[in-house]
Amino acid sequence: MRATLFKGPRRVELGERPDPVIKEPTDAIVRVVMGCVCGSDLWYYRGINPHKEGSIGHEFIGIVEKIGDDVKDTKVGDLVIAPFDYSDGTCANCKAGYTFECPHGGAFGNGDTDGGQGEYVRAPYADVNLVKVPKGEYTEDQLASFLALSDVMCTGFHAASSAGVKKGDVVAVVGDGAVGLSGIIAAKLKGASRIIALSRNPARQKLAKEFGATDIVPERGEEAVAAVMKLTDGVGVNAALECVGTKEALETAANVTRAGGMVGAVGVPTYGTIEYAKMFFWRNIGIKGGVAPARTYIPELLKAVLNGRINPGRVFDLRTDLDNVAEAYAAMDERRAIKSLLKVSEINR
Amino acid sequence: MRATLFKGPRRVELGERPDPVIKEPTDAIVRVVMGCVCGSDLWYYRGINPHKEGSIGHEFIGIVEKIGDDVKDTKVGDLVIAPFDYSDGTCANCKAGYTFECPHGGAFGNGDTDGGQGEYVRAPYADVNLVKVPKGEYTEDQLASFLALSDVMCTGFHAASSAGVKKGDVVAVVGDGAVGLSGIIAAKLKGASRIIALSRNPARQKLAKEFGATDIVPERGEEAVAAVMKLTDGVGVNAALECVGTKEALETAANVTRAGGMVGAVGVPTYGTIEYAKMFFWRNIGIKGGVAPARTYIPELLKAVLNGRINPGRVFDLRTDLDNVAEAYAAMDERRAIKSLLKVSEINR
Repeated sequence: MRATLFKGPRRVELGERPDPVIKEPTDAIVRVVMGCVCGSDLWYYRGINPHKEGSIGHEFIGIVEKIGDDVKDTKVGDLVIAPFDYSDGTCANCKAGYTFECPHGGAFGNGDTDGGQGEYVRAPYADVNLVKVPKGEYTEDQLASFLALSDVMCTGFHAASSAGVKKGDVVAVVGDGAVGLSGIIAAKLKGASRIIALSRNPARQKLAKEFGATDIVPERGEEAVAAVMKLTDGVGVNAALECVGTKEALETAANVTRAGGMVGAVGVPTYGTIEYAKMFFWRNIGIKGGVAPARTYIPELLKAVLNGRINPGRVFDLRTDLDNVAEAYAAMDERRAIKSLLKVSEINR
Repeated sequence: MRATLFKGPRRVELGERPDPVIKEPTDAIVRVVMGCVCGSDLWYYRGINPHKEGSIGHEFIGIVEKIGDDVKDTKVGDLVIAPFDYSDGTCANCKAGYTFECPHGGAFGNGDTDGGQGEYVRAPYADVNLVKVPKGEYTEDQLASFLALSDVMCTGFHAASSAGVKKGDVVAVVGDGAVGLSGIIAAKLKGASRIIALSRNPARQKLAKEFGATDIVPERGEEAVAAVMKLTDGVGVNAALECVGTKEALETAANVTRAGGMVGAVGVPTYGTIEYAKMFFWRNIGIKGGVAPARTYIPELLKAVLNGRINPGRVFDLRTDLDNVAEAYAAMDERRAIKSLLKVSEINR
């Protein structure tokens, strides 16, 4: 089959991998309809984080083509959303909804396992992981929104969930990438009364507003903190969503948060330590976050997509195909695109 | 009046201070019935944290002796509990329940303001801060429990509140001082199904069990983590209460917490930075805490004392008077006492 291959920093190309086969009776083989490039893929692309040579891409939707003997609920022909990380569904962490911490789980597209930026994927624990989309006719935009649930929308939602965003809250979102934009959608979905987006890019500001941002703060660092404080009468926000992963973004998030508030942190950390005592303890501010349990969130978010409340697929502002995967990466790397979608196959063929 | 004076590390003695007078129309003068020594006072005593020479002690209960012209709800003769830190009751932080972060608030016994380890205290914003105990006859043990609400019980409760402890949770408490023991009471009050106390002192283990601990772990550090993991089938606890303030205690608290769980941190930090990415982010664990908003918690906890559900005054295992304040400090410093109570005057005289 055709599949994107990671060959080293800035060397992402279309190549060949063996067609996947059923290995475990709980497996399914999914024909990928859409995949995409994640912000975390860019870190491999840029050589900041290491990645094994081989398969890449962990977000996809597709059509079930084959199932193992023990697969009961998932049927051939189903349109399914895959969470970016699979899990066994039976351990204590899975039962508590923290699927990323499943001891039997794993990642798609890690060099060895099939990736979402290819034609087919072997999906382990198919009944547990693949979330079925109800039968129906869907537009390309709806499909893009289903695809967003594979990772980015769940990650933004995890920021809001971890920060405990609730009805009436004032929320600041630090980061205007696809995750930050998804965080805005999540804050609105959870009933935030005011959403302050930190963004200096006009196209992203526009999308932030369409997603529910009530205020835009183009400043950065201390000036951004001052601007948010001014907007909130010197009090700060109930929750700040940290959707970047740098020390600077985390400081900004902490410093705009009011006493008793929370920082929801989902930006993959480029820092190790944080000034917890000064930034958090002495201000009675908390911090929670980590890698999103996508499988846990997909059903709730799928309902919101189906009833038209949210349209997270709008974060994909570059739509291309496997042949142009190099450009899909380059456009994101150069910030010409927020997030790149790869159309791999038609639903019906 | 007679009042305890801080004169430098290991120099805490009974001396004289001017009798307090009403300065603001919202002031009240309180005759102290009971005061006590806080774990944080020991830090000044040991020279670890600086303290201005002069008044000391921030926990007390007493009888209102005089009120300013604008004091309406607080009456002369009322038995009142003072939160260790006063606040104005009108700012955005106070309204949200985070009284320690009140911009017009302050601390009792900071060298200048009257302290709870003396005969009288001028209490600012009396109607806002002083919590009235219903008229009645109370035993010395009940009075001790009222006194515990001035700080230590509220601080333990803040650990449990910050960690979001709820019915059915499995909770670990790191630290067997008066705050840790209060954390056990708080976890039980919030409905924890299992409370694992880390303690190696037999007297404190006994009190921990009486307060609601279901398991005792005498190990420390990595061995303590292994022991808690064994007790929880390798999963860890929903919430860990960090009631010490050292890097080691915080690491233990984080490492016994399960994915999605929370550390409630109230130990005054002797550390600055923490290994957030490794200890928290990559394990989907959060941390929240700080200085307790005692005024916010006192009414709820007072009800629990009055109906006999909790008896936090039992943390006072040394009961003495102002003349023996040096011994009150020394006994805690040498860990001969968990917490020292100073009987200052009789309720009726």
